[in-house]
Amino acid sequence: MKIITGKKEFFAGIDAIKFEGPRTDNPLAYRWYDENKVVAGKPMKEWLRFAVAYWHSFNGTGADPFGEATHIFEWDKNADPVARAKDKADAAFELITKLNLPYYCFHDVDVVDYTNDIAENEKRLQTLTQYLKQKQEESGVKLLWGTANLFSHRRYMNGAATNPDFHVLSHAAAQVKAALDATIALGGENYVFWGGREGYMSLLNTDMKREKEHLARFLQASRDYARKNGFTGTFFIEPKPCEPTKHQYDYDAETVIGFLRQYDLLNDFKLNLEVNHATLAGHTFQHELQVAIDAGLLGSMDANRGDYQNGWDTDQFPTNLNELTEAMLIILEGGGFKGGGINFDAKIRRNSTDPADIFYAHIGGVDSFARALITADEILEKSDYRKIRQERYASFSVDTAKAFESGKAGLEELRAFAIAQGEPAVRSGRQEYLENIINNYL
Amino acid sequence: MKIITGKKEFFAGIDAIKFEGPRTDNPLAYRWYDENKVVAGKPMKEWLRFAVAYWHSFNGTGADPFGEATHIFEWDKNADPVARAKDKADAAFELITKLNLPYYCFHDVDVVDYTNDIAENEKRLQTLTQYLKQKQEESGVKLLWGTANLFSHRRYMNGAATNPDFHVLSHAAAQVKAALDATIALGGENYVFWGGREGYMSLLNTDMKREKEHLARFLQASRDYARKNGFTGTFFIEPKPCEPTKHQYDYDAETVIGFLRQYDLLNDFKLNLEVNHATLAGHTFQHELQVAIDAGLLGSMDANRGDYQNGWDTDQFPTNLNELTEAMLIILEGGGFKGGGINFDAKIRRNSTDPADIFYAHIGGVDSFARALITADEILEKSDYRKIRQERYASFSVDTAKAFESGKAGLEELRAFAIAQGEPAVRSGRQEYLENIINNYL
Amino acid sequence: MKIITGKKEFFAGIDAIKFEGPRTDNPLAYRWYDENKVVAGKPMKEWLRFAVAYWHSFNGTGADPFGEATHIFEWDKNADPVARAKDKADAAFELITKLNLPYYCFHDVDVVDYTNDIAENEKRLQTLTQYLKQKQEESGVKLLWGTANLFSHRRYMNGAATNPDFHVLSHAAAQVKAALDATIALGGENYVFWGGREGYMSLLNTDMKREKEHLARFLQASRDYARKNGFTGTFFIEPKPCEPTKHQYDYDAETVIGFLRQYDLLNDFKLNLEVNHATLAGHTFQHELQVAIDAGLLGSMDANRGDYQNGWDTDQFPTNLNELTEAMLIILEGGGFKGGGINFDAKIRRNSTDPADIFYAHIGGVDSFARALITADEILEKSDYRKIRQERYASFSVDTAKAFESGKAGLEELRAFAIAQGEPAVRSGRQEYLENIINNYL
Amino acid sequence: MKIITGKKEFFAGIDAIKFEGPRTDNPLAYRWYDENKVVAGKPMKEWLRFAVAYWHSFNGTGADPFGEATHIFEWDKNADPVARAKDKADAAFELITKLNLPYYCFHDVDVVDYTNDIAENEKRLQTLTQYLKQKQEESGVKLLWGTANLFSHRRYMNGAATNPDFHVLSHAAAQVKAALDATIALGGENYVFWGGREGYMSLLNTDMKREKEHLARFLQASRDYARKNGFTGTFFIEPKPCEPTKHQYDYDAETVIGFLRQYDLLNDFKLNLEVNHATLAGHTFQHELQVAIDAGLLGSMDANRGDYQNGWDTDQFPTNLNELTEAMLIILEGGGFKGGGINFDAKIRRNSTDPADIFYAHIGGVDSFARALITADEILEKSDYRKIRQERYASFSVDTAKAFESGKAGLEELRAFAIAQGEPAVRSGRQEYLENIINNYL
Repeated sequence: MKIITGKKEFFAGIDAIKFEGPRTDNPLAYRWYDENKVVAGKPMKEWLRFAVAYWHSFNGTGADPFGEATHIFEWDKNADPVARAKDKADAAFELITKLNLPYYCFHDVDVVDYTNDIAENEKRLQTLTQYLKQKQEESGVKLLWGTANLFSHRRYMNGAATNPDFHVLSHAAAQVKAALDATIALGGENYVFWGGREGYMSLLNTDMKREKEHLARFLQASRDYARKNGFTGTFFIEPKPCEPTKHQYDYDAETVIGFLRQYDLLNDFKLNLEVNHATLAGHTFQHELQVAIDAGLLGSMDANRGDYQNGWDTDQFPTNLNELTEAMLIILEGGGFKGGGINFDAKIRRNSTDPADIFYAHIGGVDSFARALITADEILEKSDYRKIRQERYASFSVDTAKAFESGKAGLEELRAFAIAQGEPAVRSGRQEYLENIINNYL
Repeated sequence: MKIITGKKEFFAGIDAIKFEGPRTDNPLAYRWYDENKVVAGKPMKEWLRFAVAYWHSFNGTGADPFGEATHIFEWDKNADPVARAKDKADAAFELITKLNLPYYCFHDVDVVDYTNDIAENEKRLQTLTQYLKQKQEESGVKLLWGTANLFSHRRYMNGAATNPDFHVLSHAAAQVKAALDATIALGGENYVFWGGREGYMSLLNTDMKREKEHLARFLQASRDYARKNGFTGTFFIEPKPCEPTKHQYDYDAETVIGFLRQYDLLNDFKLNLEVNHATLAGHTFQHELQVAIDAGLLGSMDANRGDYQNGWDTDQFPTNLNELTEAMLIILEGGGFKGGGINFDAKIRRNSTDPADIFYAHIGGVDSFARALITADEILEKSDYRKIRQERYASFSVDTAKAFESGKAGLEELRAFAIAQGEPAVRSGRQEYLENIINNYL
Repeated sequence: MKIITGKKEFFAGIDAIKFEGPRTDNPLAYRWYDENKVVAGKPMKEWLRFAVAYWHSFNGTGADPFGEATHIFEWDKNADPVARAKDKADAAFELITKLNLPYYCFHDVDVVDYTNDIAENEKRLQTLTQYLKQKQEESGVKLLWGTANLFSHRRYMNGAATNPDFHVLSHAAAQVKAALDATIALGGENYVFWGGREGYMSLLNTDMKREKEHLARFLQASRDYARKNGFTGTFFIEPKPCEPTKHQYDYDAETVIGFLRQYDLLNDFKLNLEVNHATLAGHTFQHELQVAIDAGLLGSMDANRGDYQNGWDTDQFPTNLNELTEAMLIILEGGGFKGGGINFDAKIRRNSTDPADIFYAHIGGVDSFARALITADEILEKSDYRKIRQERYASFSVDTAKAFESGKAGLEELRAFAIAQGEPAVRSGRQEYLENIINNYL
Repeated sequence: MKIITGKKEFFAGIDAIKFEGPRTDNPLAYRWYDENKVVAGKPMKEWLRFAVAYWHSFNGTGADPFGEATHIFEWDKNADPVARAKDKADAAFELITKLNLPYYCFHDVDVVDYTNDIAENEKRLQTLTQYLKQKQEESGVKLLWGTANLFSHRRYMNGAATNPDFHVLSHAAAQVKAALDATIALGGENYVFWGGREGYMSLLNTDMKREKEHLARFLQASRDYARKNGFTGTFFIEPKPCEPTKHQYDYDAETVIGFLRQYDLLNDFKLNLEVNHATLAGHTFQHELQVAIDAGLLGSMDANRGDYQNGWDTDQFPTNLNELTEAMLIILEGGGFKGGGINFDAKIRRNSTDPADIFYAHIGGVDSFARALITADEILEKSDYRKIRQERYASFSVDTAKAFESGKAGLEELRAFAIAQGEPAVRSGRQEYLENIINNYL
C-alpha cells in the first residue's frame, strides 16, 4: 500500500510503523500485526481484513449529549460542501494509508453533506464517488462496505423503513438507492443496514407488526434493486438492542436471524456484529459470534468495546486481550468472516484531542486483534481445548442417541435407556481449567 | 367454587372475601376482582384465568443463596414422602379454594419428592395424580398446566435436553413422559417447558449448535408422545435470558419464536411469558407480550415483578398499576391468552413469614390485574388511544404505499414518489399525551 | 398568577386549565392539582413548589447522539444573541404562566448564549437578568434556583472545578461568580451545583484525590463569595453516577453527604435529588430521598423518570403513580423540602414536536405528583402504615437495648441477654401487606 | 511451608507445583507466581499475601436458587458435627498447604456447624480453635482474618446488627464475641464485618436511620470488646450494594467511608474490597481501590470476578489480565494493603465437580495476580505512565493555583486570572495511549 496525501498533509509527521515486534516502546509501531505473517494457513491480513470507519474518524466531533464539539478538524473548514468533502476524503486516505490498513467503510452522509433535495444529494454523492474511486486506485485501499445514514436527519425521528409515514419511507428508499449506486461504483464488497431508528420510542403509539413487515419489504426492495444493478456482494444487518430508540427491532443476533428466516432473506443477508451492541443486549460478543456462525451467517464485525459500568454505546477502541482471544477462538473455529472483516467502529474519547491519538487508538486496536489471533491459533493447535469440548459429547455415539438425533427414538425409548443405565455419573464441565488455557497462551 | 380442606386446616381462620369494592379497608377482601363482572364482552374470570403456583406457595422455603429456610410449613412435616405430599395437596387446595381462584400449576417434583429411581418416581406421581384428581373434582379447581422440573437435580447441572451427556438427556425424557401422563390424567389444559439449565455456563466447553438441535428434537419427541396419548392442549415455552445459567437458549420471545419457526414447531407451541424474565432480558413485559401477539403465539403468562435495581429473578407479586394497565391494553387488543391464563409465579418475601402473608400477596396481585383490566377496557372504549395510533399509519393508503407493501413498487418508484412529494412534514408521536391517558383512566 | 406573553405569543391558543377534577377528558386541564387545596396542613402548592426547567423546554432541540435537532423553535430565530435571548425569555414566561406554575430554574447559558469572552458573557447575563427580573415582577413567577453550566463548553471536557488544568478551573470560577450574581439579583432562593464533568473518563490519567480536594475548595470559594454578596439561600449538590463522565464524583446521596461532611460543608449545602440519577446509580428514588432526609439534607428534587431498560438519562416526564406515591410518603413524613421544590428536569421526547406536547407533559407530571401527595397523605392519616413500621422496633424499649443504644452495654451484656431470652421468635416483615396499602389508597 | 494432611488424604495425588515459568503446559504448575521473587522491592508473597476462603472451598456445595448440591465432599460425611468439622479442617489444611499459600479466612459457622444454643456453639468453636491452632503451627499457615456469619440463620432474615428486633441483635453480639475470641486465639491478623443482611428488603417497613445507628453502635461495641481482649489487628468492613438484601447499607467504598467518618470509626476500621461487589455497585474494582487508597483505608481484598451480563454475585475466580494489571497498578502506587491481603472469595462453578478443579481455579487466580503484579511494576518502572498523569496537573504550580488550594484565593481572584490568561488551550487526556501501555507490558 502506498501512502497518499491530498493537497495538504493533515497528519503531518505522524505515520504508523509496520511490525517492530512485541518489545518495542515506539507508540506508533505495530507490535503484533505483521500483515503477511501466516497464521492458521493464511496471512493475518486475510483473517482480519481491517477497515477504518469514516464517520468516527472524519465526521465525529467529540460532541456528546452534554457538550459541544471538541475535535476541530482542519479538513472540515472549507465553506463549500463539495470542496470540504474532498478535503475530508484526502484526510481519510492519508490516515488509512499511513495506518497501512486495507479497507474503509462509510455512510452516504459521511462522504458529503446532504441537503433536503434528493437530486442535489445524488449529484454530490456521485461527485465524491468519482473522487474516492481515484483515491482507491492510487492507494490500493478498498471499500469493505457502504451504507446509508437513515437515522440522523429529523425526518427519520420516527423511523426510516419503519416510519408510520410512508412519505418518510420513500425518502429512505431514495437514499438507499443512491448509496447502493455509490457502493457498486466503488466496488464495495458488501452493503450494511443498521436501523438506528427502526424501532420505537413508545409501544403506545406503535404498530410493531406492521412496521416490521415494512422493514422486511424495504430490505427485499433494496436487495432487488442492487442485484438488478450488478451488486454481487453480501448484505449485512447490524443488530443493536436500543439507542437511540427505546427498542430497536434488530435487537440481537437471534432476533435478526429469526427475522431473516421469516421473511426469506437468508440467501442474501448476513450479520455484521458489533461488540458494544452485543453487551448492551446482555450478551458477550463471543455469544453473538457463535450464534451467527452456527447459522452460517457471520458476515463481518464492528470492532470496539463498551464500558461495563455505563449503559450506552461508548464505542471505545478494543483492548481487552482475554475477551478478544475468546472471540478469535470462535472466529477461527468458524472459518472466519463471510465477505466482511473487522471495521473499527470506534472513536477516540472526547478528550483525546491530539491528531496522534487516532493513530494510537487504531494501532492499539489492530495489535490487540493480531495478538488475539496468534494466541487463539496456538490454543487450537497446541492445547487440549478442542478435544475437551468434543469429548463432552462422546456419549451421543451410542445407538439410542443416534436414533434420538435422527428422530427415530422418542420419549419411551429414552426412558427405557435411562432405566437400563441407572443414575448418570457426575461429569465436571472443567470451566476453570479451560479458562486457564487462555491465559497460558496469552 | 367450594372451599375444601383436608384432614387438617392449614390456614385456619384465613379466607379471602369476594368483591367488596374499592373503598374497603379489609386486607382480605378483593376490591376490584369481581369474577363474574363483564368487561370487554366476557366475565373477568375468563379474561384473567388466574392460577396459583404450587412451587412458590407450597414448596418454597424462603431459602436464598445466603440463607437457610425461613418458611417452615406444617404440611411439610410428615416423614413419609407420599403422606407428606398429600398434606401438601390438602394445603394447596385449601389455599386455592379460599382464594377463590380457578386454576393451579405444578412441576412433577412439587407434587411429590423424587428419588433417583425412575419407576419409584412414576409410582409416586401416579398416586398423587389420583389424589389431586379427586381434589379437583371436589373443588372445581382445574390444572392450567403441568411441567417437569429438569433443573434442580444435580444430574441436570449441565443441562437436561441440552446436556452433553446423552445419558442425562434420557433421564429428562423419562421425567417428561411421566409429567405428561400426569398432566393428561388431570385434564391439564396446557404443558410448559421452562429450560432453566438449557443453556451454558461457559461457551468454552459448549457446542451450542448441537445442544440447540437436541433441544428441538426433545420438544418434537415430547409433542409426539403427548399427542399420541391424547393431549390436545397447547405446549408453552417460557423464555428467560439467564439464571441459573450464564445464558439460556430460550432468551426472550423473539429468540424462542425464531427457534420454533426454524424447527417447525409453530403449530403446537406457544409462549408462556414471565414479567421478571422480560425485564432481565432488557425488555418491558409489554414488549414481550406484543411480540408474542404479533406472531399469534401468546399462550399464557407468569405474573410477578422484578426489582429494577437487582439483577436476578426476585419473583415479587405484581403491584404496579401503570405497568399492568399497559400490559392489559395489549392483551385486550390482542384478544387474550391462547389456552393459558395468569399464573402467579411469585413468592412472598423471605421475611414474610405469617400464613396470612400469602393471602395478602395473592389478593394484591389479583386486584392489581383486575383493576388494570377495567382501566384498559375503559381506555380502549372511551379514549382516542386506538384512533391516534391508527391515524399515524394513514399515509399507507396511497397507491404507491400499497404497491410497496404488496411487493410491486421498488426503490425507484419510491424515489420518484419522494421527489414528487418533497420533504415530509414533521409529525409528533404524541407520547406524553398517550401516557396521560393511562393515568386519566386509572 | 397572571399569564404574560411578550411581543409575540409563542403558544397561541394553548393554555392549561386549572383544576377540573379527576373525571375530565380535557387534555389541557389539571385533574388533581388544585393549588390551594389543603393537604397535610398546607396548600398543595406549598408542598410541591413546582418549577419549569429553562434548558429542556427552551434550549433543548431534540438532538441526540444519533440525530440532529427536531424541535425548531420560533424563539430561537433572531440572529442577534441578546434579542434571541429575550424572545426565549418571553416564551419561557408565557409557558410558565400559562401552566400556572410558581417557579423556574436556569443555567447561565440557557438564558443567553455565551462566547469565549468572560466580560462579554457577564454583560449579556446582566442584560438578561434585568429582563427576567421585570418578567418575574409582572408575573409573580419566582426563581427556585440558578446555576452555571460547567459542562457543555469544550474547555470543560476534562472537568471544571476538577480539571487538571488550573486555567480551566479559573474560567469555571469566573462563570460561577457571574451566575451567583444573577441568582442573587433575581432573588433566587437556592443555587445548584451539578458537576457533569466533575469526574473522570479514565482512572489511568486521573489523580482522583487531588481533583476531589479541588472540588471541595471550589465549593467553599463559591459559598464564601455568595455569602459575602448577600446570598442567604441554600446551596444544592445534585448527585449523578455517570454520564457524560465514566464516573462522576457526586455519585449518589451517600457519596455527596460523605463529601460534605469530610470538607465541612454541611451547614451550607443540601441535596438536589434527581429520579433518573438515582436509578442510574442503582437506587430507587425513594432510597435517595430517605438517605437525604435522615441526614437532614433533602433540599430539592429534579422530577423526571428514566427508562428501566436503557442505561442513560432519558429525563422523561414522571407518570408512575405507585413510585410517586412511595416518594411522597417519604417526603411527607420527612417534612418536605428544605428550601427547594420539584423542578421538572424532564424533556418531551425527540419525536414529540407539537407545541402542545410540552403542555401535556407538564400537566401529566404535575397531576401525577398531586395525586401522589393526596394518596400519601391519606395513607399516613387513615391506614396502619406508620404503626406497623413503628411496632417493628418496639423491642428496643427494654433496658438492655437502651443501654446498648447509649453505649453502656457491650457484647458481653448483649450475650447474656441473648442467652436469657433464648432463640428469638420469627416476625414477619409484612411487605406484601404494606404494598397493598399503596394500591388501596391510590 | 509443609504439606500437611489429616488421617485421610482428601486430595490424593493432586498437588500444586511451585514456579515452573510461563512456558509450561502443566496445569498444576505456577507459571508466574514465584513467591520469593522480588518485585518492587519485596518478595511477591509480601505484596500479595494470598488466602484461601474456607466457605467456598470447604462448605460450598454447588447449590444455587434453582438446584441442589453438586459438590459432595468426603470431609462432610461424618455424622458427628465436631468430628465432621475436624475432617473439614484436615481437608482445608491439606489444600492450603498443597497450594503453598500462606493464609486462610473463615466465618465461625464455616469451621463447625452451629445450633440454636449459644453455649454449645461457643464450646464447639473453642474445640475447633484448638484444632486449627495446632494445624497452623504444624504448617506455618496463618489466619488472615476471621468473621461471624450473621446472615445465614433464619433469625437474621431482617438483619443482624440492624434487625428491628433487639433480641436478634443480642444474638448477633454473642456470635461476634465468640468469633472475636477465636480470631484472637488463632492470632488472626484482622477481623471482617460483611453485613449481608444489614440493609432492607423494603423501605416501607424500615427505619433506615435508626438501623444505621444500631450498626454503628454494634461496630463500636465489637471494637471495644476486641481491644479489651488483646486484639491489635485491623477491623475491615466489606462493602456490597445488594444481595441478599434489596439494599445493603455498606453499599460501596464511598458509603462505608462516609459512615466510618460519621461515627468516628476511622482509626480502627479499614475496607475489605471485593471485585464482584464493586461491579454490582456500578464501579470498576479499580475505582473502589483508588477511593480506599485515597482515604488511607485499603485494608484487604476479596479476589474474584463477576459476570458482566449477570446481575448477581457469581464469585468466579479472577482471570482477566487487563483488569488485574490496572488493579495492581493502583495497589502498587498506593503502597499495598494495610494489614490484609488477597483472599480468594471465589468458588468453582457448580458444574466443576472434580477435586482437581479447585486446584486449577486457585492456580489460575494466583498466576493472574502474579502476572499482573509483574506487569504493573514494569509499567511503573519503565514507561511514561506516571509522568503523563503528573504532568497533567503541572499548571497547579502557579501562584494563583497555590493560593486557591490553600484557601487564599477565591472566585474573584480566579476570575481575574481567567481573564488575564484568555481561553485555555485544549489538552488531550491521552487515554488510548495510556491504554496501549498496559498491553505493551502485558
